[in-house]
Amino acid sequence: MSLRESAAQIIRNSIREVLPGPKTREALQKMELDEGKTVVVSVGKAAYAMAKAAETVLKDRIDDGIVITKYGHVKGELKYCECFEAGHPVPDANSFLAAEKALEKVMPLGEHDNVIFLLSGGASALFEKPIIEEEQLKRITDCLLASGADITEINTVRKHVSAVKGGRFALACAPAHVKAIILSDVIGSDLSVIGSGPVTPDASTGEDAFAIIDKYHVKVAADILKILMLETPKTLDNVEAEVIGDVTLLCQAAKKACEAEGFRTVVLTDSLDCEAKDAGAFLAGIARYYQKTKVSLAFIAGGETVVHLKGKGMGGRNQELALSAAAGIAGLKDTCIFSVGSDGTDGPTDAAGGIVDGETAARLKENRLNIHKVLEKNDSYNALKTVQGLVVTGPTGTNVNDVAVILIKR
Amino acid sequence: MSLRESAAQIIRNSIREVLPGPKTREALQKMELDEGKTVVVSVGKAAYAMAKAAETVLKDRIDDGIVITKYGHVKGELKYCECFEAGHPVPDANSFLAAEKALEKVMPLGEHDNVIFLLSGGASALFEKPIIEEEQLKRITDCLLASGADITEINTVRKHVSAVKGGRFALACAPAHVKAIILSDVIGSDLSVIGSGPVTPDASTGEDAFAIIDKYHVKVAADILKILMLETPKTLDNVEAEVIGDVTLLCQAAKKACEAEGFRTVVLTDSLDCEAKDAGAFLAGIARYYQKTKVSLAFIAGGETVVHLKGKGMGGRNQELALSAAAGIAGLKDTCIFSVGSDGTDGPTDAAGGIVDGETAARLKENRLNIHKVLEKNDSYNALKTVQGLVVTGPTGTNVNDVAVILIKR
Repeated sequence: MSLRESAAQIIRNSIREVLPGPKTREALQKMELDEGKTVVVSVGKAAYAMAKAAETVLKDRIDDGIVITKYGHVKGELKYCECFEAGHPVPDANSFLAAEKALEKVMPLGEHDNVIFLLSGGASALFEKPIIEEEQLKRITDCLLASGADITEINTVRKHVSAVKGGRFALACAPAHVKAIILSDVIGSDLSVIGSGPVTPDASTGEDAFAIIDKYHVKVAADILKILMLETPKTLDNVEAEVIGDVTLLCQAAKKACEAEGFRTVVLTDSLDCEAKDAGAFLAGIARYYQKTKVSLAFIAGGETVVHLKGKGMGGRNQELALSAAAGIAGLKDTCIFSVGSDGTDGPTDAAGGIVDGETAARLKENRLNIHKVLEKNDSYNALKTVQGLVVTGPTGTNVNDVAVILIKR
Repeated sequence: MSLRESAAQIIRNSIREVLPGPKTREALQKMELDEGKTVVVSVGKAAYAMAKAAETVLKDRIDDGIVITKYGHVKGELKYCECFEAGHPVPDANSFLAAEKALEKVMPLGEHDNVIFLLSGGASALFEKPIIEEEQLKRITDCLLASGADITEINTVRKHVSAVKGGRFALACAPAHVKAIILSDVIGSDLSVIGSGPVTPDASTGEDAFAIIDKYHVKVAADILKILMLETPKTLDNVEAEVIGDVTLLCQAAKKACEAEGFRTVVLTDSLDCEAKDAGAFLAGIARYYQKTKVSLAFIAGGETVVHLKGKGMGGRNQELALSAAAGIAGLKDTCIFSVGSDGTDGPTDAAGGIVDGETAARLKENRLNIHKVLEKNDSYNALKTVQGLVVTGPTGTNVNDVAVILIKR
């Protein structure tokens, strides 16, 4: 099998292991439910697949259910769950409407009832019900953003004015039991961060929220201040949560897939977070060092790199990583580096990521493309396209960050 | 021993292994000289120590010699070698004068004579003799720089108008034998790049040089064009060259030093070349992943990162790498990351690099220093100074790039 074929196989097998459907089924099969009613609430980009898996396992055990996902992500009607599509990354009226529907379904439940809460990335926007006026929330968020508040500060404030974030959805479910099954798009899988933690106790206090408003001199009316000061739950005794997939699992899956292709493996990290093109350069440096290896080697780095946009080109973080690596492995034999987003969509492109080998740089040069200049323009997509450097999987239905792999075949 | 003490020991022992004196002595002790005269020509930042080592080994076997190094680097008179100090990184009149002296010493040599050529980083500027007028050379270089020519293009042109670069010094030595002993400051140790390759055949042709002049529309007089077209030597049969120290050896030395302190080691690369702060973030990601290790682990990355200056603070690439890593390993137990320049001077500071551990970020916060903002200002030196985060060795006398190390003690 050629190196490119091995890479394609590794990509397929890695993503297969983090698809939400099978993992949700597995988790539900071993789950013990209380004797009362069962309501499924599935929110996030993978909500449809997760709800469908729940219906397959639980069948008539489900009394009611709701799916809240991104526009275009509902793939047909479900038997037990009502499906909603809503705004992402910015919540819209449908986000609020759907969250209200979900609250209506869980609020009447009693202590022997169950809420199967299926959570995946994107839920912060898709699943939201502010307890202040929408315009006020928008104004406060805009002020904070303009004043340089960081994302943690903004989320602290948002949790305190939401009916579902910061553990408040679990509070609304009480006394029913919440069994949460979570597909994490957050590096480190901090449950209070994934979807803004609808079923996770919130460590931030009303005073913290107030201090942030004060620090950035955001003007708010007295009644909103009062709401801000209301406490989010600090403990929750009706919740059990299980993470069924995250970037750590993606790395393990990549490791297994590389081993199946005959590579000895080293996982470098599952929390890569630096600039994409520098991650590519670093990985290329590792590839150069191990050229003398006698055995086939794979190095795996999971996480999510960042791109500081300068140009107006087309691309994504995985494509930038790969393109940058192409310069660093120019001329190397039987060596390739690829980087893919597990969701199958890297940046605003139809590619999941990029793949390059020792010949890529020369072929780009033939096409009169200078890697350094392409990166300056953030135009990795168009450059990689000319050298069969795009990885195209289509939307995969999962969302557990990215994985980059060096393959050195001997 | 504490982790900090282990780190200090590893830094000392790593640098000791790449000091030019002992390595030069070793190389000379096994060298066979031809029966004739022996002239020592030692150029570069480590020229003084290398010449001194040669005098120790060869003693009266030396008939004549010259040292050409940076201002302030001559540490007293030598017995056989005349010492010159010259401009760096921009060559000055002393660079030209010294190169001429060196040429005078080697030109008369016969076929049974020896030139011991001791080369270290910085020689491109310190050891130069243009064969066109100095002002013309400056004008051409300035034009090329202003037109966006890259460093390879500029060096191609410079080699063609130099009496010593691009193998021409070896040509001047012929028919005498040149025994070159090289301390490399170039990643990958390409002999045609170190000091612009005074004793290495040059692959670039006169036509290449002309094409560059033409490409950037640099105006040059007909007589200079003629000189540009003169060929540099494409082969040299009077040269034997040995690299006695480079970043690869530095990495091996760091590996040995880590093992001596009880760490199991992984060398990641010996050609790290990405942005310093992103290298720090990447290394921190590796440190996070290996927190569950049961054995003490060290990861080693050699090379030379870059810093794209934005601010006006004080620092260097090694300090930026370490400071950035501090954010990524915040809170980790018994984990430290350090990065040091083997020459002992990181950027325009008196520190060799930086060292951070799991507590560094919290201590910086106590000092009201935000790592992200400090990096924006490129002020790593002043921030690290407040948290015992500087590695200070003083000038070491060697120059083989940098090494960064993650230590996880268990």
